[in-house]
Amino acid sequence: MPELRKDPIIGRWVIIATERGKRPHDFVIEEEVTRGGFCPFCPGNEHTTPPEILAYREPGTAPNSPGWRLRVVNNKFPALVLQGDPDRMGEGMFDKMNGIGTHEVIIENPDHHVTLASISLEGFHEVLRAYGDRIRALAEDPRFRYVLVFKNQGRSAGASLEHSHSQLIGLPIVPELVMEELNGSKFYYNWKERCVFCDMIRQELQQQVRVVLENQEFVAICPFAPRSPFEVWILPKAHYSSYIDLKAESYYRLAEIFSETLKRLEKSLGKAPYNFILHTAPIREPEMPYYHWHFEIMPKLTLVAGFEWGSGFYINPTPPEDAAQFLREVQLDASREPTNQA
Amino acid sequence: MPELRKDPIIGRWVIIATERGKRPHDFVIEEEVTRGGFCPFCPGNEHTTPPEILAYREPGTAPNSPGWRLRVVNNKFPALVLQGDPDRMGEGMFDKMNGIGTHEVIIENPDHHVTLASISLEGFHEVLRAYGDRIRALAEDPRFRYVLVFKNQGRSAGASLEHSHSQLIGLPIVPELVMEELNGSKFYYNWKERCVFCDMIRQELQQQVRVVLENQEFVAICPFAPRSPFEVWILPKAHYSSYIDLKAESYYRLAEIFSETLKRLEKSLGKAPYNFILHTAPIREPEMPYYHWHFEIMPKLTLVAGFEWGSGFYINPTPPEDAAQFLREVQLDASREPTNQA
Repeated sequence: MPELRKDPIIGRWVIIATERGKRPHDFVIEEEVTRGGFCPFCPGNEHTTPPEILAYREPGTAPNSPGWRLRVVNNKFPALVLQGDPDRMGEGMFDKMNGIGTHEVIIENPDHHVTLASISLEGFHEVLRAYGDRIRALAEDPRFRYVLVFKNQGRSAGASLEHSHSQLIGLPIVPELVMEELNGSKFYYNWKERCVFCDMIRQELQQQVRVVLENQEFVAICPFAPRSPFEVWILPKAHYSSYIDLKAESYYRLAEIFSETLKRLEKSLGKAPYNFILHTAPIREPEMPYYHWHFEIMPKLTLVAGFEWGSGFYINPTPPEDAAQFLREVQLDASREPTNQA
Repeated sequence: MPELRKDPIIGRWVIIATERGKRPHDFVIEEEVTRGGFCPFCPGNEHTTPPEILAYREPGTAPNSPGWRLRVVNNKFPALVLQGDPDRMGEGMFDKMNGIGTHEVIIENPDHHVTLASISLEGFHEVLRAYGDRIRALAEDPRFRYVLVFKNQGRSAGASLEHSHSQLIGLPIVPELVMEELNGSKFYYNWKERCVFCDMIRQELQQQVRVVLENQEFVAICPFAPRSPFEVWILPKAHYSSYIDLKAESYYRLAEIFSETLKRLEKSLGKAPYNFILHTAPIREPEMPYYHWHFEIMPKLTLVAGFEWGSGFYINPTPPEDAAQFLREVQLDASREPTNQA
């Protein structure tokens, strides 16, 4: 019998098809094909992007020239503009403001063919550090209330360029799903005086049925009520509401578990498109006892039909218990870098 | 400058690209191609579907045989099952229940090639009446709390069969987005003592910039803060929280405006895939002064990237003012059936 399961944070119900759960080979996976053509993100083409905002470079190399390991530039076609003030205003009963914000691209590495599933641990660590560095820098701008870090991997997941990159949007508002998580976790905290994410991590580590991986500091789980097959969340075991409070050495531990999670997803699902998104506390908020930052990784396997989009009601054909088991058991290539198990 | 706009009901912010707004020809529209092959929904193949639950038939024709104008059958691959009780239970901190529910298919007309954009007004009226008849029937089952009516038109909008059909899911829970609308509109009502939808309709009819069509009883608008380009909502002008309180003759007025809206969308966007969904009050609730039923129609033009899905934060490249103007001005074929203007 299918099950209805409730997300413990925001209270969203999803249908989980527990009986004939779909395994990876049951999905028609749209593998990415190489697109070719000119790439503005490749070394030597730095002049074709807006100037770099941040770069990790080899000593002695000049800005906006080769020699970088990672570059952050403004999006050439930004969804928001940086000039001006939000100017909140009404139009009768409606509320609006100027679309002030920033839209940046994190070019994760110089090699056109390296993805986050194949990048070195050192490289992955620098990507994660760049997220933190940029959020910290943007928190200085009082016009912003939130920095949204996300990645679209593969064309049908929304990546318009092939060269592996993440994106970041600085916003004068808090996005709706993050607001729902803040409200939901506050409600739980007011009642239990415990963080709902900490409770979830405790139960997952004890049950060991939806855990994909763990190391000293982090855990990767298939959440109890996932919207999509093979959805994976990565969370710090210790309570932190904001990503920018991550210690320098923790970026390495996070890179280890994140890298192995992506390798296991790729080994299971082929080069399926995916998205991930960082859910963290709004900027300049003091540490919140009820919120807990995390990454949500969503492979793009099922078509999200309009009724799911228009109702907030998801049907997931793969139980997270099956997905987690599959991801744990899939054999990675022998050459893979080992992950320290806790 | 782009604008950030807030949905007045649930408070979701969206980015509207007001400057270089995309017009229909700017989108790469995936037109539906005829798929061919055996169709279980065509007359003569009634034995290949589960038995009919409801049918509007010519006098003297037998159930599950030709002679029908519209048929409702159970989905052959239902997401939920009808046997048993919900049996709400916990798994540690998590909440779940049996996936009790019903999943029905409304085969809208016998002709394989007729869509809701080309069906007769009489036929459209019967489709709308069937939605009401089925919601009313399912409201008798105390296990259900909500009936979700929706349509996926076109393969990439989630339609697995070509023959035009709608779907209906009876659920023991209220879907998340409807719950958000209920909460948001209740909040507004508690503050203003007015229905937020009624206020919105009043302002739209006065401003006349986002109105696509209206007749005596209904209005079709591009909402102020739409998630997607050319999103259209159809609402009754008078306050009703539940679709099943629609009077028999009102189905005709609704068919008129709905039909012309779909014709105008098709004429503007080609045979673009779309979804629509009925948002109505939970079943067996008394009339609610704060909630207002409506249809939401969402053409599938932009790819919903993961970050939008994972953040609840949408970027819409077409201002609703432009979309409404385009839809108002597009020339329908001379042969079209006239709609009574209010």
